[in-house]
Formats: sequence, structure tokens, C-alpha cells
Amino acid sequence: MPVNLEAPIKDKLLPINGIKLGITSAGIKTQDRPDLVLIELAEGTTTSAVYTQNAFCAAPVTLAKQHQEQMTSRYLLINSGNANAGTGEAGLQAAQQCCQSVAELSGLSAEAVLPFSTGVIGQQLPIDKIIQAIPSVLQNLAEDNWFDAAHGIMTTDIVAKAISKQIEIDGKIITVTGMAKGSGMIRPDMATMLSYIATDAAVEQSVLDDILSRSVAQSFNRISVDGDTSTNDACVLMATAKANNSEINVVDSLDAQNLYQAIAEVSQFLAHAIVRDGEGATKFIAVEVEQGQDHEECRQVAYTIAHSPLVKTALFASDPNWGRILAAVGRSGLSNFDLSKVAIYLGDVCIVEQGEPASSYTEDQGQRVMDQDEITIKVELGRGLANDTVWTCDFSYEYVKINAEYRT
Amino acid sequence: MPVNLEAPIKDKLLPINGIKLGITSAGIKTQDRPDLVLIELAEGTTTSAVYTQNAFCAAPVTLAKQHQEQMTSRYLLINSGNANAGTGEAGLQAAQQCCQSVAELSGLSAEAVLPFSTGVIGQQLPIDKIIQAIPSVLQNLAEDNWFDAAHGIMTTDIVAKAISKQIEIDGKIITVTGMAKGSGMIRPDMATMLSYIATDAAVEQSVLDDILSRSVAQSFNRISVDGDTSTNDACVLMATAKANNSEINVVDSLDAQNLYQAIAEVSQFLAHAIVRDGEGATKFIAVEVEQGQDHEECRQVAYTIAHSPLVKTALFASDPNWGRILAAVGRSGLSNFDLSKVAIYLGDVCIVEQGEPASSYTEDQGQRVMDQDEITIKVELGRGLANDTVWTCDFSYEYVKINAEYRT
Repeated sequence: MPVNLEAPIKDKLLPINGIKLGITSAGIKTQDRPDLVLIELAEGTTTSAVYTQNAFCAAPVTLAKQHQEQMTSRYLLINSGNANAGTGEAGLQAAQQCCQSVAELSGLSAEAVLPFSTGVIGQQLPIDKIIQAIPSVLQNLAEDNWFDAAHGIMTTDIVAKAISKQIEIDGKIITVTGMAKGSGMIRPDMATMLSYIATDAAVEQSVLDDILSRSVAQSFNRISVDGDTSTNDACVLMATAKANNSEINVVDSLDAQNLYQAIAEVSQFLAHAIVRDGEGATKFIAVEVEQGQDHEECRQVAYTIAHSPLVKTALFASDPNWGRILAAVGRSGLSNFDLSKVAIYLGDVCIVEQGEPASSYTEDQGQRVMDQDEITIKVELGRGLANDTVWTCDFSYEYVKINAEYRT
Repeated sequence: MPVNLEAPIKDKLLPINGIKLGITSAGIKTQDRPDLVLIELAEGTTTSAVYTQNAFCAAPVTLAKQHQEQMTSRYLLINSGNANAGTGEAGLQAAQQCCQSVAELSGLSAEAVLPFSTGVIGQQLPIDKIIQAIPSVLQNLAEDNWFDAAHGIMTTDIVAKAISKQIEIDGKIITVTGMAKGSGMIRPDMATMLSYIATDAAVEQSVLDDILSRSVAQSFNRISVDGDTSTNDACVLMATAKANNSEINVVDSLDAQNLYQAIAEVSQFLAHAIVRDGEGATKFIAVEVEQGQDHEECRQVAYTIAHSPLVKTALFASDPNWGRILAAVGRSGLSNFDLSKVAIYLGDVCIVEQGEPASSYTEDQGQRVMDQDEITIKVELGRGLANDTVWTCDFSYEYVKINAEYRT
């Protein structure tokens, strides 16, 4: 069950002026399950997106990148239940047909539509079912549909993930609402599985790109469930300019910084929600690495711990088997690594100091931390001033069960 | 249960003239379980060893390296049940006391003794129990004790791992006998958990070092159970020179090549045995990557597949969910990766050709391969002539169970 993750409350998800969402069931995987979401962006909306760095990226990712370069985006079409990945030329054509169908019914060109898919890899998209459902998803468009849309993009997620936040910029109330889906195949190398964040602020393209890239770096690119980077990851940030603030067009301005802060918080909430709802997760783990030479080596150590099946199964068992954390730090591959400067903490309990077992450590102290469902593992490298954090979950029977039975 | 791995038969393990082994129970973890093994090397034996590259290497590893530099090795003392890792200065002193005790009773100096430990990390060695047991392990020394010794070094292993091989060199029968232990925390970066291989051939030190390094590269350094490199890995090769062959002293000679072949086969059998007996393993998987620019990138792709929890759980479920293999290849991080040249095979069934789903593929074909308990995944990169193979196992409920309950 998800770790301390509550489902969003419909009334607390604030509509974004200029964004409408439609949801329907196309029957892609099962009948009557919402699996098709359309997001309509008002004219004048600025859009920024980041995509998976998996070389085998899915057909919709390839096409969405092309369309984004060719024309201002006006629609995002998202299906769950089928990733349209590993589907070759036929998959690309299917994604194109989807966009074409939205374009025809809305009087725009296909390049104004960005396609997204999530679900099983390696099966052709049931294109007829989707095209048949597009009229009803268009008809369903409404500004207060974030709650249903957050459900429509789910796959193995147990809980829907969405949140809203308001700030004041330039004397105007600015609203940010975002949703995400993701539970397994999570080690985003660019963005999470799928996440859509919108604001009514007026933001110039380069500022929006900067805000998205920095927000993703501190949220979706710092989480891991199982170390597997999906073929379909995408994160889209939309700014409708309906709040009547003067356009934010300087990257370093205070307004840009305030908006960044709000969007980063929404991103981090959604990223953490994905880990909390990680497949089979029973614990939410922060791995903080401090005193590194640079951010990269901090992340290298943090991910080595976060990906270790032995650390993750010990966390599942609430076993303070800290030797596994130590072994993971030791194999993380830092050059000129002086162990005598290393300290490791489990929660507030020091387990290693100056590279040696902490003399003050007792098994009871370790057990007390391990019995919690939110645990921080902190490593001090003693070789610099950089620090970084990644978030992950434990590794349970349920993870194996979910992934062994995924297609059955 | 181990995958197609039969226990060694006592009579088929051939003694090595010049090597005696003693086994006893020191009661390190439980009473009456053999957990202490002593190997005595006749005067004139040449010894070569490789050790873990984990920066947090265990106390016995640190000490064994020192002793090997200081003096010709005459004894190897191995305990299971406690790794003496993460034990700081006290652990180093404990390892020293063990060596000292063997030295006093055998009339040699402590530097002639190499210590090895395997088991739980982070607990102090029960030094009194071990020292008390050393007289009985010395008394037990005999040439035909390989079978019992292979059992004495086991931890979570289900099946003991040992094998013998004979070849003819210089008109003499040369015997090679080796044993190994290991089941979890297996992604050797130098050697497996623990492996001891002996031959009666006369081999000059530099030739022996070369043979060990090449054999390990093709065996223990090509396997992975869970991607975790142990703090205690060690592989020792001993040559007693009792077979009366003229000393092999040229690396490229035919005799050296023949001996390498025999030792590499023994190493590979033992390495495969560790994977077959991998914690929770139900399948034995070879991941072959061909047509790479160099060996390193072939291994990079192979390990990305071999370490993917999603691939490993699909293998456990016998689910031909080949999209997960494709996703792993895609995220393996090769630069300038031209997907249109990639082919992927599951056994003899082509699943991807020229970067696209193979038109000939059917789910039935995939299922037929997946139902087997020995599966080869082959990736052709289409960018060079190098190839490499790693061996791994699947990821089951049992793996989680074993590692969640390891210390209870």
C-alpha cells in the first residue's frame, strides 16, 4: 500500500484558466476504465516539455518532439493501457493517426497535437478504439476535470497523484496545478513516466524552459523505484497567460524565482507521490549524500544505495543491517575514496564515523529507526561541499508479484 | 532451488598433491555446523590471489593482501558465518589474532597465513571461538577433504560448489581442483565471494598471476545475482609443483595455455554454479552481447539487462515481456547508438530486427523459450566486432524472503 500518500480531493484541485481536460474510456485494456485523456490549451499558451533519455523511446515520444518543434501545441492526447513502445513504424503511424483525428475534429493541424502513451510495451496501439473515442473525449472537455484526468492516466498506480498551489506574482493570484502517473519502471533520466503541470501565469518560453528543467532536476530526476528508465517518460509544463500578470521574461527575476519555487514544490510532491506509490512499496526512503566533491558523485553514491536490492530488502524487513549500506557506499566507484572521512547515519543514529563502526551505535537504536515508514539514510563523504538527495522505496514480495503478473 | 546444479560427488573431487584441508565447527553462527576451514600449502607452492574492489573491503582482505606481499603463503584460514567487515580496527586485530594462532601452532610466522571471512557484515568476529577451534582444524588436515571444505565455506548457498579436472602437460597428469561459495551479494568486481583453486602443476609466479587474472575475467567477473559487490570477495589459485612437470614459466607457451584452459573451465563451472544457486534463482540466464565497438560496451549493455529488476521478474514469471529487455538496452547509455542496427533474440527467436519488432515473432515462440529454465538473451549492436557474455539468474519471491529474513 502507498506510504503516507493520500488521494487528491477533487475540490482542492484548482482549475487553470485556459486549460480544459476531457476523459473517457476507449476500452484499451479493459472496458469502462478511463484510459483516454485530452488536454486542451487555450491560444497563447506557452508549453515546455522534457522526455525520456531511453534510446528506445516510444513512438509518441518521437512524434511529440517533432510536433513541438513544428507548431505551438494546442492539445495533449494521453492514453494509458498501452505504451506504443517497441512498435516500430506501425506504432509511429498509429500515433500520427491519433493526432490527425483530434486535428480533424478540432479544425487544427496534426502538428498542434502532442501524443503520449503509457502501459504495456511491445503491443500495437488499438488505434480504432482510440479514434472512436476521440469525439467523446472532446465533448467531455472542462476546466474542473483534473481529478478525473489524474485517474485516467494511471496504470499500476494505486493512488492518483495531483496537487494545486497558489502564489502571488505581480499583484495577481497565480495558480499551479499538476498531475502525474508512475509506479514502476521508475528511474527517470529526464522526467517521470508522465506528468502534466499547468499554470495561468504569463511566462516567456525561455523562462518556462528554465523553470521546467530546474524543477525536474530537483524532483522527477531524483527518484527511483527500480532503476529502470521507461521508454515513455515525459513531463509537460504549460503556461496559459490568463492571470494577467506582466509576462515573466527574465530567468533570474524575482517573479521567475517565485514561480520556479511553486512549480518545483508541485513537481517534488508529484515525484515523491510516485515513490510513495512505488510498486510494492512499504517505506519511503530519502538517501542524502553530503560533503561530496560535486553533485554528480553525490548522486552516484545515493543511487548505488537506492538501487541495491540488498539494502531495499533489508528496509522492507525493517532490519538495521547497515553493513549492506556500507557495502553499497564502498562499491559506488568514487576515485581516491578516503574511507577514514566517511560517516553514515540511519535517521539520526550514527552507524559509521571516520570510516569505522560508530562506538555509540546499538542495535536498538538502529531498530527504532528501521521500524519507521519514512527513513533517511545520510552519508557524509568528507571530501567537499556538494550534496544531493534521491528518494526511493523498499523492495517487497509485492514488487515481485506485481511485475511477475503484470501482463496476466 | 538451484537451477540444474548437482551437488559435487565426494569421490570425483581429486586431491591435489601438496594441499591439505581441515574442517571443523567453531560454533560461529550455530553449533555443529562446519564453519572453519584451514588449507595447508606444501613448501614450494606458488600462490596468486585477487580480491574485492569494494572500497569498504573487509579486515581479512586488508590483512591477506599485506601478508601475501610479506611472505610466501603456507596456510589459508577461512571462516563462514561472519564476514569481519565493517568492524574497524577491532576487526583487523581479530583477523591478526587468528593468523597468529595458526602460526604459533604450526611453527611459522603469522604473515604465512592468509585470513578469509564470509557471512554477516558489521558484527565482530567471535575470536575466542575461532582460536579454540584451530587445534582441531589443524588435526583434521587431509588431502581428500575438498568435499567437506566446500561445505564448510557455505553461507546462504544451498548446494556446495566444487569440481576437478585433469589434463596432460609435459607428459605428466596435471590435476586442478577448485571450490567456491556464493549465492547473494554477487556482482564480483574482481572475484567471487570466495573461491579456492589448486593445481599440482609447477608454475612460475607471473604465469600463475596471468592465468588467474584471465580465468577470473571470463568467469567470476562475468556473473551477477543482484548487482551487489561484496566486501569480502577473494579468489585464490595455488600451484604446488608436485606433478614434476618442468616449471611453466612463459606466459604465451602452449603449456601455459593448456593450464589456463583447464583453470578457466574450473572457474567458469564454479562461477556458473554460484548463479545457478543464486538466492531464490529459478532460471539460469546467459546475456550475450555481440557486434559492439569494444568489450566494455558489450558488458555495459549485458549488465544493464542482467540487473534490471523488471527483466528479472519477467524471467521469473516466464513472461515473454520482451519490451523490458528492449527498454533496458535503450537505457544502457551507449553513445551514438543507432537503433536501426540492433537485433535482439530470446533463445533462437528474433524479437527485434533492425531496431523494429521482428515481423516473424509470435507470442507462442516467445513463451516456448521463456518456459525453459536455461535462457539465452542475445543482443546484436551492429556497431563493431567485440562480444561479451554475462550470466545471471531471475528475481523471485524467494530472493526477497531470503534477504528480508537473513539476520533473523
